[in-house]
Amino acid sequence: VTVYVGVDVGGSKVLAAVVSPSGEVVRSVMARTPGRLVQASAVEDVLTDAVRAVSGGETIEAVGVAAAGFVDPAGERVVFAPHLPWRGEDLRARLAERWDTPVVLANDANCAAVAEAAYGAADPDGLGVVVTMGTGIGGAILLDGRVLRGHNGMAGEFGHMQLVPDGEPCECGGRGCWEQYSSGTALIRFARARLGHEPSVLAEACDGDPDQLTGAMVTAAAADGDLVARKAFASVGEWLGVGLANLVAALDPHFIVVGGGVSAAGNRLLDPARAELGRCVVGAGHREVPPVVAAALGPAAGAVGAAELARRSGQAH
Amino acid sequence: VTVYVGVDVGGSKVLAAVVSPSGEVVRSVMARTPGRLVQASAVEDVLTDAVRAVSGGETIEAVGVAAAGFVDPAGERVVFAPHLPWRGEDLRARLAERWDTPVVLANDANCAAVAEAAYGAADPDGLGVVVTMGTGIGGAILLDGRVLRGHNGMAGEFGHMQLVPDGEPCECGGRGCWEQYSSGTALIRFARARLGHEPSVLAEACDGDPDQLTGAMVTAAAADGDLVARKAFASVGEWLGVGLANLVAALDPHFIVVGGGVSAAGNRLLDPARAELGRCVVGAGHREVPPVVAAALGPAAGAVGAAELARRSGQAH
Repeated sequence: VTVYVGVDVGGSKVLAAVVSPSGEVVRSVMARTPGRLVQASAVEDVLTDAVRAVSGGETIEAVGVAAAGFVDPAGERVVFAPHLPWRGEDLRARLAERWDTPVVLANDANCAAVAEAAYGAADPDGLGVVVTMGTGIGGAILLDGRVLRGHNGMAGEFGHMQLVPDGEPCECGGRGCWEQYSSGTALIRFARARLGHEPSVLAEACDGDPDQLTGAMVTAAAADGDLVARKAFASVGEWLGVGLANLVAALDPHFIVVGGGVSAAGNRLLDPARAELGRCVVGAGHREVPPVVAAALGPAAGAVGAAELARRSGQAH
Repeated sequence: VTVYVGVDVGGSKVLAAVVSPSGEVVRSVMARTPGRLVQASAVEDVLTDAVRAVSGGETIEAVGVAAAGFVDPAGERVVFAPHLPWRGEDLRARLAERWDTPVVLANDANCAAVAEAAYGAADPDGLGVVVTMGTGIGGAILLDGRVLRGHNGMAGEFGHMQLVPDGEPCECGGRGCWEQYSSGTALIRFARARLGHEPSVLAEACDGDPDQLTGAMVTAAAADGDLVARKAFASVGEWLGVGLANLVAALDPHFIVVGGGVSAAGNRLLDPARAELGRCVVGAGHREVPPVVAAALGPAAGAVGAAELARRSGQAH
């Protein structure tokens, strides 16, 4: 048996998955990303372990790597990644040699969009926007099922649109980027800012050390009705709506799909986003405001899309 | 002799032009727009006078109307226009009947983009952005010379992207819209805020009444070296760069063309915009930052594009 593997490399997590020809995750392995201050090879070690573990001894036909960063138009390098250490190395060739298998490299949000258009919530026709919320915000523009890549292959970097002048500093070097207000990072920051001022189960969850707070803790606490966690989600959701309204003003898309790890919170995130989008969008009442739907493939969309690109690439040979 | 006429209806000015088959303005007439608080028919009266005057008694083959507002996908109505009184009337049919000639109706920035791609500064290939600065900011996305219209025909409404939370109120009903910081309106506001605090020829130009200040006064004063006027242009230019950086993050365009009345100031506007774009754009140093060029057709681009669409429409029959 031969299998296709997709690996999604985000700022916090690595998700490797064996993906069936119908886009289903057969098996998956999760690991922590070492961060952006380590050697590039340390991230590659984590990927190697994850790919080996998920393959379960089966022969790997090809691997697709979805990276949370700018991938060059040729798909050879991660040119720049705010949350990862890669800076222009021959990544695709290096991994292909190390793993002795064909490797396809693409931007993670573009992979997620490919997956959602092929198997998920994205309409295969018309102009659409896919927003991927994890540690940061990635994204892709779909035009009739095709990812609009832009001149440098960098279209869809929605997370680095500036929404707040002189706002929160961002790892990209800018300030006030959208993802500083609507992402897993923002979710933790918003919750942390309330700890010590308002009662919350999160104080206990993080052993009294707000620096230890994680997105998973906030998500779990919100599900349990914790008000601090719920307010953090409401803030992240509202900011999501503000940024979506900007994308609607610029692009007038037919649909919006929201994916990524944070989107697992579903309507706790999307309801405030929809409300704010409706409030902020220009020409409301004179236009159809596009539906905001959760990605159907959940947090695995990036890995599924990466495997899909690996499969297509193999068929093209 | 038969002629094609293009009429550009902005928030402040109406420009009617007879346009040659090679995209040149043969004759033009300028009039003031009555504003958004008048009857819709008052604007149509102004258009009628302008079209009649510019035609100079020659037979009009068709008229293209470029409107500073949302035009429905069928090109029949101005659905909503922050600076104009139209709200869904059968505008195209009404003008065609009144003028007894075929009429084509399109968004003004889309018209300008069509003109720039056909005769001007826009590359006919690749993904590009056209930003039109007048009373507000209009825009268009060009993909291989074609305007990307979006689901409601409203793509390219860049001016209503929110850049400042709880910022300046906008006629669209929102707050902190880009065009409140980068437009003719913003230019006047920035200059006005300095009057009385800093010496300026503008105090005299407006007879001591800052409410009488116009964009033309600020433009003339800046050309004469007036510091208040120059600082106003620098601010508008910097904000132009901030918004362009957001569009580059989202779209990664190959080129950016800036047109509209305010762009007549040329590099006084574009140099600070280029500097700020270079400073704000995500991944600077890891990407090609697109060139920001002045529209080649100047303030007449909307009228030229409208006439071009009228001409194409006639040839299609």
